[in-house]
Amino acid sequence: MSRPLPPSLVNLELKPDSRVPIYQQLFGQLRGMILNGELASGTRLPATREIAKLIQCSRSTVLLAFEMLMNEGYVEARQGSGTYVVDTVPEDAIGCRSTSAAPDKMPAGVRLSTTASALLDLDIPKSLLPHSRVIFPDVREFPFGTWSALFRSAWKQPEADLLGPHDPMGYLPLRRVIADYLRDIRGLICDPEQIAITSGTSHGLNLLFQLLLSPGDQVVLEDPSAPWMVAKAIACGAQPLFIPVDGEGICLDANSEAASGARLAVVTPSHQFPLGYVLSQRRRTALLNWAQRNDAWIIEDDFDSEFRFAGRPLPPLYTADQSCRVFYMATFSKILIPNIRLGYIVLPPQFVESYSRLRAIVDRYTSLQLQPVVASFIEDGHYASHLRRMRALYEGRQNTLLALAERYLPELLRFEPQDGGMHSVGWLLDSLPHNISAARLADLANKAGIPLSPLSTYCHRFPRPEAVLFGYARYSQGEISYIMQKLADLTGCKGREAG
Amino acid sequence: MSRPLPPSLVNLELKPDSRVPIYQQLFGQLRGMILNGELASGTRLPATREIAKLIQCSRSTVLLAFEMLMNEGYVEARQGSGTYVVDTVPEDAIGCRSTSAAPDKMPAGVRLSTTASALLDLDIPKSLLPHSRVIFPDVREFPFGTWSALFRSAWKQPEADLLGPHDPMGYLPLRRVIADYLRDIRGLICDPEQIAITSGTSHGLNLLFQLLLSPGDQVVLEDPSAPWMVAKAIACGAQPLFIPVDGEGICLDANSEAASGARLAVVTPSHQFPLGYVLSQRRRTALLNWAQRNDAWIIEDDFDSEFRFAGRPLPPLYTADQSCRVFYMATFSKILIPNIRLGYIVLPPQFVESYSRLRAIVDRYTSLQLQPVVASFIEDGHYASHLRRMRALYEGRQNTLLALAERYLPELLRFEPQDGGMHSVGWLLDSLPHNISAARLADLANKAGIPLSPLSTYCHRFPRPEAVLFGYARYSQGEISYIMQKLADLTGCKGREAG
Repeated sequence: MSRPLPPSLVNLELKPDSRVPIYQQLFGQLRGMILNGELASGTRLPATREIAKLIQCSRSTVLLAFEMLMNEGYVEARQGSGTYVVDTVPEDAIGCRSTSAAPDKMPAGVRLSTTASALLDLDIPKSLLPHSRVIFPDVREFPFGTWSALFRSAWKQPEADLLGPHDPMGYLPLRRVIADYLRDIRGLICDPEQIAITSGTSHGLNLLFQLLLSPGDQVVLEDPSAPWMVAKAIACGAQPLFIPVDGEGICLDANSEAASGARLAVVTPSHQFPLGYVLSQRRRTALLNWAQRNDAWIIEDDFDSEFRFAGRPLPPLYTADQSCRVFYMATFSKILIPNIRLGYIVLPPQFVESYSRLRAIVDRYTSLQLQPVVASFIEDGHYASHLRRMRALYEGRQNTLLALAERYLPELLRFEPQDGGMHSVGWLLDSLPHNISAARLADLANKAGIPLSPLSTYCHRFPRPEAVLFGYARYSQGEISYIMQKLADLTGCKGREAG
Repeated sequence: MSRPLPPSLVNLELKPDSRVPIYQQLFGQLRGMILNGELASGTRLPATREIAKLIQCSRSTVLLAFEMLMNEGYVEARQGSGTYVVDTVPEDAIGCRSTSAAPDKMPAGVRLSTTASALLDLDIPKSLLPHSRVIFPDVREFPFGTWSALFRSAWKQPEADLLGPHDPMGYLPLRRVIADYLRDIRGLICDPEQIAITSGTSHGLNLLFQLLLSPGDQVVLEDPSAPWMVAKAIACGAQPLFIPVDGEGICLDANSEAASGARLAVVTPSHQFPLGYVLSQRRRTALLNWAQRNDAWIIEDDFDSEFRFAGRPLPPLYTADQSCRVFYMATFSKILIPNIRLGYIVLPPQFVESYSRLRAIVDRYTSLQLQPVVASFIEDGHYASHLRRMRALYEGRQNTLLALAERYLPELLRFEPQDGGMHSVGWLLDSLPHNISAARLADLANKAGIPLSPLSTYCHRFPRPEAVLFGYARYSQGEISYIMQKLADLTGCKGREAG
């Protein structure tokens, strides 16, 4: 009586550990096989006891799955003969059979919007897309135990204010904590009402660009700067206007005529990305005057000023702005962990209402789940102590980098010491015998798993001397040593004898 | 010797429970007072012991704060005379004093982009912005204990794959779990590679509109539909084309000529929002044919099909699509909690690469923190059991609503029974003596804290009979009873004697 099993049944894969009951798993998988044609119309299913034996479960489990299949119209019992796959499954009866059951389907082509095409044509190197490849914290040092305990205490029995419909600006207690933090640590005084929680800097920039830039508008970008900044301009139909950066930051004083028609400037005054310079006092004044004179706005991206090793950090540009033209942005991704995707904007007061309404229309609000966790993390002092620890660690790592690059790569790279941050710029030395380019060096390094980026990828209109960016913050001193030696190997550098 | 304290010092507010040390709190607050002018230049600070007495701490704590103020240049010691606020604080020396210290600041006006202005001109009623005011689950029933325990087990000692740079498509294990779920529960077969995790439906629609719609393109929207759908069209410069809905869903068959130039249609086939109808078989065919004929795309928003009380749910439109033109969207917000802001899209295979690159450029990826938690929640069966429990609960609540509206508001509203969902449409009865409008009824109700929305707010070109939408899912039976009686009170309905 026992016939061979339909071959597809050996593909049944049931997980006894799953909390989805076995009969439901069996039902789902058999239905899947019927829908994709592995069990064709008219196929006789094996007896329930054979299947039970095959998948090592009780016969009643299989019976239950069969009953469901029968109820839902996928199989039918034929008197005295067994259970068969029906001729017309329910999906066919209503013309809804899954695509994968249709061998003759004709996939349509891809026709993208003009904006999407323009963005994808930018062909930003994949390695650069996470800005954070260069600016990436050492996540291994993050106090995950504390973090997850704080999550649990926020959500185990959540307060009522965590459950209602939410303010597009974010969770008010977190915004209050941020206002206190900005006052105490950055000398920036603002009302919590001005603070908008975002899903990270990239997301915040999208919102501000959408708020401020009309198609055809010019937007001032630093040169060099992150390549995806250009994408944000294009996404809202704006034209990037590149202004060069020197040791005092963006040269808007010498270029204020050219920029007189621009509506917006995006700048990194505390620590220019990627060169690391601090915007000087006279350049700050020039920038603010430019905005005032041209009725333009400034976005201040303060992405890593917390990691300052020496000297007092300059207060944010925001604090010197007498005419409410500066939007101050910062992120938690660099101090906590990048994948939480949380940042904030301090809005000029006159924009609070329009921003908040726009945010609600565009994408509602940022997930509330982590906002009370970050608030407790700051309020309970974990943020300050983690920051202190990381700052010391990163300072040590920069010192290691400088010393070891000097030892192992003396004729290849000169890393510039910086007062803070998480990455360093390594300038290629002319004396290099085999005259390697930064792009070639980065390529060699990337193939060996070392994330170096050529500075040229960040340069838009103004070429720079050959250099590479290296985010040392994420590597231990031992790892930095390994990387320096590996780079010496890859490039045939001789290095210096240790003293 | 003891002089009166400067009055502003009584505003010092130190939190002994905080883990921020008292001296640091004191430093921050004194600096704040100096910056905002409450402690003016030349003011003599009280002796440390007086402050110590005032704030009840040790004198050494105050000394430490004074030392920091002195080091950072905010106060100076004058020989034998005490400690004074300096004439020029560091922020002034570099021209960066905080705005709030500048009484003469001149806030700039608000000049918005053309897009932002157009969006804000839509003047979408605030009450509607959270779509979820109507479609809102009963979050009190959510198993927060399990949820927060799962978070903790994912993040206490996170796996390595949770810490690296991330795929813009989302966390692969979650996408695998979703693919299994779609196959078993919705009969939708797809590759996990096709699944993109989004920050909710609204966010997912932004991305798809940006991917597919060029300025000037037409997009077919259901009429009625959520008002913010129009905003999404405007945000990318597209023109909404409204097609009416009847008992069989969107009437694209009768309007396919008018829609022949449109690039995209956004539809709710499983449960039309807000009317609740199911797209019939012939209309499904018409819709798919329309897309095929016009080289257009379809977004299927399957926002609440899980809450189906009776009958077998129709499979998604996606499963009947033979030419890969349907983008299938769903959300976790309705079954879990809205504030997690997580959803997903099943992309037609030919769009996986372009979508993924676009997402990386636009806003990188969705916060990874909750993705492993949702994956475990589904895999461990909590999702299925919560869904089962909620489905039974909501069915009971709909029955209660129908019965109690019949008892208390017989001459005012007739709620239509639906096979599923989380809300109901209450049609106003002509027989009403005082002839109240739906807008007026909603207004009265909102003032009493009852979220009713007039159907007219969802109608774009085609007026409908007067009706209100009521999201009953979030209310217990007792609360529904209270609400029905309250509405009777507000409108002077007599009601029927209970039998």
